[in-house]
Amino acid sequence: MSQALLEGVKFDANGLVCTIAQDAQTLRVLMVAWMNAEALQKTAETGFAHYYSRSRKKQWMKGEESGHTQKVCELRLDCDGDAVVMLIEQAGGIACHTGRESCFYRVWRDGAWQTADAVLKSETEIYGKPHG
Amino acid sequence: MSQALLEGVKFDANGLVCTIAQDAQTLRVLMVAWMNAEALQKTAETGFAHYYSRSRKKQWMKGEESGHTQKVCELRLDCDGDAVVMLIEQAGGIACHTGRESCFYRVWRDGAWQTADAVLKSETEIYGKPHG
Repeated sequence: MSQALLEGVKFDANGLVCTIAQDAQTLRVLMVAWMNAEALQKTAETGFAHYYSRSRKKQWMKGEESGHTQKVCELRLDCDGDAVVMLIEQAGGIACHTGRESCFYRVWRDGAWQTADAVLKSETEIYGKPHG
Repeated sequence: MSQALLEGVKFDANGLVCTIAQDAQTLRVLMVAWMNAEALQKTAETGFAHYYSRSRKKQWMKGEESGHTQKVCELRLDCDGDAVVMLIEQAGGIACHTGRESCFYRVWRDGAWQTADAVLKSETEIYGKPHG
């Protein structure tokens, strides 16, 4: 399985592929993150979204700290093979580390990036402390 | 306007930001591409999606050759400021250079990336020749 899975994907110079998590029910785009080959394999094998953190330089399972895991319903690859879309079920209805449903909570309106979504749960509630 | 627009965005080491085009009606993710500061400004100013081509090393308006322009209904920015989601109206119902509705036409199923979407219009019909 791994070979066929990875062969289709064009990882970039850093060995990463851009991945979009989209809510399987509402189709809202919840977040964008990066996967290395291992994270993609783990995602396909376990059915739960795994990413690669460029700042922490490690692979991680989404929700491992927060409990906000992402169950993968469908994995799609684009024409160039350099981007992945996942339809997911978002545990807790919160994808963003700020405690919002989606990371895309700022809208360009009237000449400013305006926050358009409420915080559903504070970072302290989610992580026990503000998230670094 | 430009200053506020660009200030919120964290362009990467190459001066680019990852951008997702999502159909404003169906919410299907149609494509992922990159914008430099100029492309983002042009997009906000004109209301039509502009991108930066990493292979051709130039800014371009989506649809300038194919006619498959993208009218932008909403621009959103994520928590880290390094990804943009656009809700768009896709002219011709075709976003992909292969003549499909979406670039994400391959689904991971039964151990293979399977093509799940039909070509709506051939590349020759769109571009007058196969698209390089």
